[in-house]
Amino acid sequence: MTTSDVIAAPGLANLIAAETRIGDVLGADGFFHYRGYDATQLARRCSFEEVWHLLLRHELPDAGQAQQWRNTIASAAVEDDDLTARLLEVVRAATVAGGVADPLATLRTALSAYGTLSGDQPLWDSDQPTREVRAIRTATAVPWLVTAAHAIAAGAQPRLPRPDLGYVANYLWMLTGRVPADEHIRALSRYLVLTVDHGFNNSTFTARCVASTGADLTSCVVAGIGALSGPLHGGAPSRALDALDRIGSVDRAEAWARDQLAAGRRVMGFGHAVYRTLDPRSELLKQTAAELGGPLAELAIGCEAQVVAVLDEAKPDRPLRANVEYYAGVVMQACGIPREMFTPTFAVSRVVGWTAHILEQGLDRKIIRPRSRYVGEPAPRLLPDQSVR
Amino acid sequence: MTTSDVIAAPGLANLIAAETRIGDVLGADGFFHYRGYDATQLARRCSFEEVWHLLLRHELPDAGQAQQWRNTIASAAVEDDDLTARLLEVVRAATVAGGVADPLATLRTALSAYGTLSGDQPLWDSDQPTREVRAIRTATAVPWLVTAAHAIAAGAQPRLPRPDLGYVANYLWMLTGRVPADEHIRALSRYLVLTVDHGFNNSTFTARCVASTGADLTSCVVAGIGALSGPLHGGAPSRALDALDRIGSVDRAEAWARDQLAAGRRVMGFGHAVYRTLDPRSELLKQTAAELGGPLAELAIGCEAQVVAVLDEAKPDRPLRANVEYYAGVVMQACGIPREMFTPTFAVSRVVGWTAHILEQGLDRKIIRPRSRYVGEPAPRLLPDQSVR
Repeated sequence: MTTSDVIAAPGLANLIAAETRIGDVLGADGFFHYRGYDATQLARRCSFEEVWHLLLRHELPDAGQAQQWRNTIASAAVEDDDLTARLLEVVRAATVAGGVADPLATLRTALSAYGTLSGDQPLWDSDQPTREVRAIRTATAVPWLVTAAHAIAAGAQPRLPRPDLGYVANYLWMLTGRVPADEHIRALSRYLVLTVDHGFNNSTFTARCVASTGADLTSCVVAGIGALSGPLHGGAPSRALDALDRIGSVDRAEAWARDQLAAGRRVMGFGHAVYRTLDPRSELLKQTAAELGGPLAELAIGCEAQVVAVLDEAKPDRPLRANVEYYAGVVMQACGIPREMFTPTFAVSRVVGWTAHILEQGLDRKIIRPRSRYVGEPAPRLLPDQSVR
Repeated sequence: MTTSDVIAAPGLANLIAAETRIGDVLGADGFFHYRGYDATQLARRCSFEEVWHLLLRHELPDAGQAQQWRNTIASAAVEDDDLTARLLEVVRAATVAGGVADPLATLRTALSAYGTLSGDQPLWDSDQPTREVRAIRTATAVPWLVTAAHAIAAGAQPRLPRPDLGYVANYLWMLTGRVPADEHIRALSRYLVLTVDHGFNNSTFTARCVASTGADLTSCVVAGIGALSGPLHGGAPSRALDALDRIGSVDRAEAWARDQLAAGRRVMGFGHAVYRTLDPRSELLKQTAAELGGPLAELAIGCEAQVVAVLDEAKPDRPLRANVEYYAGVVMQACGIPREMFTPTFAVSRVVGWTAHILEQGLDRKIIRPRSRYVGEPAPRLLPDQSVR
């Protein structure tokens, strides 16, 4: 260790790992933005495709650009028949017949194969326009591959995107086989915009680590999918909803929260690593859930108040508030998304953020390679002198 | 940014990211070790399986443990027929017919499918013995899957491990279809031991990032494979050999090195991010190459002296020495490993190091999540008021 070494806190929580122009999370203010624009405002007023343009091309599109961009995305989502057939073969071979469906794990496999079969090249061997095309194609492959994985695991027929539907509507269509209602498209679009990027979260940072080696974009995204599959990262939306199932009614929420604390368990859906105040994503999703209505939304809103009161009493120094996962599950369920597709739906949006970060990281030709502090057996140890060696 | 924040140098080069008990790299001393034992001594005197035991079980095995451990590894490498057939289906579907073979990319896909089909579970849902079994199974899947990928890309029949051969011999057998000579087994074993671990290199750190989310071991290893595929990380052994091809004879090495420098190109096979002196891996591999003999070894040794002299003259402040990749390629070629399998062979050893790090990281229940410094358009920006939104 030299004098210039810096020591990170556990989880690198206090480390400024790099500069970015993509966005920022101001945890103390309960505010986050993409390229300077308040993300909750973008979610209210812009389409997912427009925000995608903002992330990849640095600016919101004007009306003409927006139309062109939608066409670019729509045509990128359609692969030739041979490639489509090959990928469905991969999905079928990688799906456990009659087993537990894990569409995110199958997506990890299928997207990896997609990269190979569609000729992805190391970032360092590509120019910027080629990288952008790869970024768009890779992201557009996610909704159809992950819904195909879901369909095949259920013994159903996978669907491909329809040219007459927008990006968000197509995802719901491929998933459910029904053309979605406008209110569901609007609600899911808000969720997708709100979750497209969020600082150096683990999967984004992981994708940037891989990008720093000059690897192909596919390797970076596949690594991000693996990270997102971790229970501490993308795994919470369905768990928060499972908890609401167990609570069952608002009048039982307080006792449930006390039991969780007494048992030393995490209260799923509450608290965030960065936000020390309201999670701005949660606020808009709560409003969205209320607009969609229904008994689950009522249960969630009622329980939130009860749980927060218990948490405030138990941990007055560390305000724990409903996080993005809590209302995300309520909104996704209202849109007809089954629970096992919650984290895969998160991947549908976050992959766009990953690709923006991968392209940004790719501009820097410096490999990410930190150090460790060795705390094991003192070196050098003498090798035992045995006849076996 | 609060006062407690620390700012990392580019690539996190000066950052102590975490503690480890697995090993250390002392760049200034040209020394690295695994759990306190000089890695070059281990490479000379221990089998790859013994070092594997050291990494996973913290101690070198005694003679009885070593035999049991070899049996554990050998039986882990044999999967049931159904799973084997499924995985070969995945490999076939993910291989471009008549295209450029990239066995590492196919391994990324196949190993991802292997995790799903063999029921891998999130690290956080597993106890330590289960994790160790997964670590062994995942690592033993690498040699047969990557040689199968290579065979299928060439239109040949994949091979499975033979019960009468050791781990290293089996890899060469599966790859070449010939029972290898003892000198080749010994040489490759040295290479594998020397490359099994090396601090928080990019792929190891990436695998630890994913592990910190509590994801399954497969997701961590698949991320590591993607990182290893990057040209700045695992991609150099074949490039160094390609350079030797272009040089052709020792008397042309000096002019070649001067041309590279004049053109501002990297001199592949020379210099390392951490070592400021001789790369200890390179020293032993040079000796191993000399023992194996042949015109390539002579060419490499002769050219090294010429290139180092040019580099010393051009960059007197920054000694650039032959790194592990330079002689690794020479040794692998002498062992009959084709060039496109150099980086996949690196994966055969490094996967063992990754699994040790993943298990170690898994003990820490803190997600890795650094911060970024936003340097883009000042926030908040006003959304343009357009009819399209």
